Amino acid sequence: MRKAYHEELDRIAESLVEMTHLAASAMSRATTALLDADVHLADSVITADADIDARREQIDLLSFDLLALQQPVATDLRVVVTSMRMSSDIERMGDLARHVAKVARLRYPASAVPPELRGTFREMGSVAELIVEKVGSVIARRDVEGALEVARDDDAMDRLHRDLFAQVTSSEWPHDTETAVDITLLGRYYERFADHAVSVAERVVWIVTGEWGDEAGGGHDEVADTAPAGA
Amino acid sequence: MRKAYHEELDRIAESLVEMTHLAASAMSRATTALLDADVHLADSVITADADIDARREQIDLLSFDLLALQQPVATDLRVVVTSMRMSSDIERMGDLARHVAKVARLRYPASAVPPELRGTFREMGSVAELIVEKVGSVIARRDVEGALEVARDDDAMDRLHRDLFAQVTSSEWPHDTETAVDITLLGRYYERFADHAVSVAERVVWIVTGEWGDEAGGGHDEVADTAPAGA
Repeated sequence: MRKAYHEELDRIAESLVEMTHLAASAMSRATTALLDADVHLADSVITADADIDARREQIDLLSFDLLALQQPVATDLRVVVTSMRMSSDIERMGDLARHVAKVARLRYPASAVPPELRGTFREMGSVAELIVEKVGSVIARRDVEGALEVARDDDAMDRLHRDLFAQVTSSEWPHDTETAVDITLLGRYYERFADHAVSVAERVVWIVTGEWGDEAGGGHDEVADTAPAGA
Repeated sequence: MRKAYHEELDRIAESLVEMTHLAASAMSRATTALLDADVHLADSVITADADIDARREQIDLLSFDLLALQQPVATDLRVVVTSMRMSSDIERMGDLARHVAKVARLRYPASAVPPELRGTFREMGSVAELIVEKVGSVIARRDVEGALEVARDDDAMDRLHRDLFAQVTSSEWPHDTETAVDITLLGRYYERFADHAVSVAERVVWIVTGEWGDEAGGGHDEVADTAPAGA
């Protein structure tokens, strides 16, 4: 019984790590679809999001059964409760990749991203992929140091996001408002993707140390707040 | 012991309902701050968000202790696990009200909303307030019928959101891109606010019936997906 129990806990962690791989792949393909105006790739991201959702449901059912049948305490309880939250964050990351793919799809055969912003989006895509892969290894190894790195990568994403806003809201913006709207939403999708990654990393810190890396979660949205300033 | 236990469960539900009142008040005041360019009101919303965050933390600690000490099963377990998720949704609604207030603050002494869009934002504010108040009563009464109403109110919000996008992305948009960016983000904040309300209502349905009102959660973002089309 106890052995099966710890195997279940391991299975939950493995599923979470797999979810991070799926989210990384989704965001990476969504970025390519966006930059290359590749509608088939965009469709594949949109379709594959159901897999991420299904994983999340699986993890939630497993966690719920563990709570009901095994009544874990102390660290194990923290792990189970936190896993349900991490699955929710990672599922949301999948949604955000899907949103990016949908914008790519919407503007096909054109690209939603003007030439001079391609570099910024390529970089946002790279940071997004890097950050979620790191989160996977943070979960797998319960790596508190790695969790701090994730916060630093999020700072890089915030900088890119601010740059983007500065360009869109500049008086020299040379494109129409439809493009500005697309860029605004796309920027927010990437930024929120990274925010959720930080949130997952912090939950791992909480499992290991019983303390939040930051104040009590949910506060990773400050750049979005100030970004409309174009600062 | 058992009596104390059910009192704790009741306390969690009451705290969730109080959170919905705080979120309703935050969004209502944020909307007024936005339309009247009232920077003091905006600041009060931004400051008060810490109260909502604190409530969430309190509910989470209470829920966690209940899980650890009382090891609830069946419906009680569903209630506790789901409460932690509802607190997270409502806290996020508070964040979104804060985002609206921050845009108001950013554009002060001007209003971020051009005259011809004031009516739409006033309506979005009303729907947001209505929907979160309904969610409070859905939680308090475990009201499955009320939960369906919440979904209908969300449809109204989606329509307003689509109208807004049609205007921003129209070739006749008479304002600068900074305004377009503000309106895009503001529209998304209101729409996400309503999405989280639906999510809370569905969780209540799950507590009562063991079934999701919709497919397994997290799917309430489709309008955001299509909105950039200006459809």
